[in-house]
Amino acid sequence: MEQNEIATIIGPIHLEGGASLPEVQIAYTTYGELNAARNNVIWVCHALTANAKVNDWWPGMIGKGKLFDTSKYFVVCANVLSSCYGTTGPLNVNPEADQPYFHTFPKVTIRDMVTIHKLLAQYLGILEIEILIGGSLGGMQALEWAIDQPYFARQLVLIASSARASAWSIAFNEAQRLAIEADSTWPSQDADAGRDGLRAARATALLSYRNYKVYTSTQTDPDLDQIWPQLAIEYQQYQGTKLVNRFNAFSYYRLTQAMDSHNVGRNRDGVPRALSRVRADTLVIGIKSDILFPTEEQRLLARLIPEAHYIEFESHFGHDGFLTEVEKITVGVQQFRWSKRHATAAEPIAALIG
Amino acid sequence: MEQNEIATIIGPIHLEGGASLPEVQIAYTTYGELNAARNNVIWVCHALTANAKVNDWWPGMIGKGKLFDTSKYFVVCANVLSSCYGTTGPLNVNPEADQPYFHTFPKVTIRDMVTIHKLLAQYLGILEIEILIGGSLGGMQALEWAIDQPYFARQLVLIASSARASAWSIAFNEAQRLAIEADSTWPSQDADAGRDGLRAARATALLSYRNYKVYTSTQTDPDLDQIWPQLAIEYQQYQGTKLVNRFNAFSYYRLTQAMDSHNVGRNRDGVPRALSRVRADTLVIGIKSDILFPTEEQRLLARLIPEAHYIEFESHFGHDGFLTEVEKITVGVQQFRWSKRHATAAEPIAALIG
Repeated sequence: MEQNEIATIIGPIHLEGGASLPEVQIAYTTYGELNAARNNVIWVCHALTANAKVNDWWPGMIGKGKLFDTSKYFVVCANVLSSCYGTTGPLNVNPEADQPYFHTFPKVTIRDMVTIHKLLAQYLGILEIEILIGGSLGGMQALEWAIDQPYFARQLVLIASSARASAWSIAFNEAQRLAIEADSTWPSQDADAGRDGLRAARATALLSYRNYKVYTSTQTDPDLDQIWPQLAIEYQQYQGTKLVNRFNAFSYYRLTQAMDSHNVGRNRDGVPRALSRVRADTLVIGIKSDILFPTEEQRLLARLIPEAHYIEFESHFGHDGFLTEVEKITVGVQQFRWSKRHATAAEPIAALIG
Repeated sequence: MEQNEIATIIGPIHLEGGASLPEVQIAYTTYGELNAARNNVIWVCHALTANAKVNDWWPGMIGKGKLFDTSKYFVVCANVLSSCYGTTGPLNVNPEADQPYFHTFPKVTIRDMVTIHKLLAQYLGILEIEILIGGSLGGMQALEWAIDQPYFARQLVLIASSARASAWSIAFNEAQRLAIEADSTWPSQDADAGRDGLRAARATALLSYRNYKVYTSTQTDPDLDQIWPQLAIEYQQYQGTKLVNRFNAFSYYRLTQAMDSHNVGRNRDGVPRALSRVRADTLVIGIKSDILFPTEEQRLLARLIPEAHYIEFESHFGHDGFLTEVEKITVGVQQFRWSKRHATAAEPIAALIG
């Protein structure tokens, strides 16, 4: 039932930073069938290094009886701009130069990612999104989209995400880019450039995706008398190598910059004004142990998005809980949807009539 | 009044990991005068990238009327083994090879650092230390020393430190070493090898020395409409470059490994048994916002070191508070010392008679 497709958009696609792309391919995956009214859509926005195949990285979310019930819903996920999983990115051939973009691939923003996904939704003939959902960088896209087209998605679910990239998350990303830049192969026009740097970058990123507690509980050496620790070291190396084997430094570099650019308030008179434009019924989810996007960022979203609901849960995995805590997310979203269905006319519906 | 000296120890110095050094130079700095009884000593253990000149990196601690009152005390600080500030390290010439050690400099442990500082104390004719104090990696050394020679220091002050390096801190260090290894100049036998990697490593380390709050409050761009953030990025680059200009990747690599090796329980039947051997009057200080050595690590020290006192304070600077919060540390240590002076005979003195 999983359909993997590629759509091609002939541009130019104008990017927020001023550059443009002559054309863009969008790799996307669908599950289930679009109904006749073209409005039974669950649109999933993926995070930094994921791809369009939701079932691969969010197992347990899709299927009959699951949150994304494919007997009722048409689930869509599109790979983000500048990634390496089918949507145009730095390793694609620049048609104007007849060779891969490599370092010349322009910097893109979260809004640029949404721009091409809006075109894809149009191309697919979707009239309304029932649930627009994303975690982390996926939440950034979902939120941008809900602000840009306030009546397109009926419900919006933002997990472990924010209104604006924090200086802290930017500093984490910059430390990682410095590791890629320290790799002397990075300047070469070669798909393998910067691989060792990327490995170090991922090891740094992982620290922000987890936290003190989960490292100490899972990566502490049991031998009390050994001089040189092993587990935590091998774990960092393993995680770095794992990413290098499925990603490239060019996409990673640009994607972290896109994350840094996230600021829904840009050219919209600031964050509060931007968030006040959301008209979707919104559920914001925070993870208590998340050190990269601490819950104060989700609380801010919930406070400033009209009528937003907010839940918070505990996870052993910190920020990565947005990927692993399928059951908690499912229950949270189902309760939210139940409460929306059973809201009486007497309750305030400002968010719907906005 | 600052005296900078070098002592040379003719070895071989046997290291815990099995290697040995034919001879070792120790750079040390003293302030004030050793009294006739040779027991008015404040011994300061420095942290990862610091040097023996306490007044340079802990301004406000030394001087008349300060915590380290040089009209009463003889203050000593010695540069650690494998550093680059005068004590033997990877850039020193290996007398057996007639060229710098570079990558062949052996891995050292916290205990190895203490081994040579004990020899220095002997060489200086010190009979007793009045206060043995250190923060972070300095606290690791002070604690090792207090376990190894329980009656040599009368008072022990451990700030933002731990009994054993956590998997979390080891993982932070490994991400940094991976950045150095990603620098393709790193394998070369050249004092400048790995500089770009070191720059990235320091940017990663800084995240662990600070925290979310201080980054967001000081490194958030004021311009709400700019696309690409600058402050946090430039700050990371600046901090990385600053270290590269005063340090080298070889010493840094080995020092982080020494930090990883920290485990007072090694070959002492575990941490609780090791800590029970401390006989010094001990003050443990934790910093509430420290994400690298969270306060649960200091609470553990305070619980397991006999009769230890414990205080915790807030700092804007996270782990780096051990360097910046001179007034809070001064007040804490003075109150501790006052309470020790005024302890009545009726109070339990188990820690003294041990």
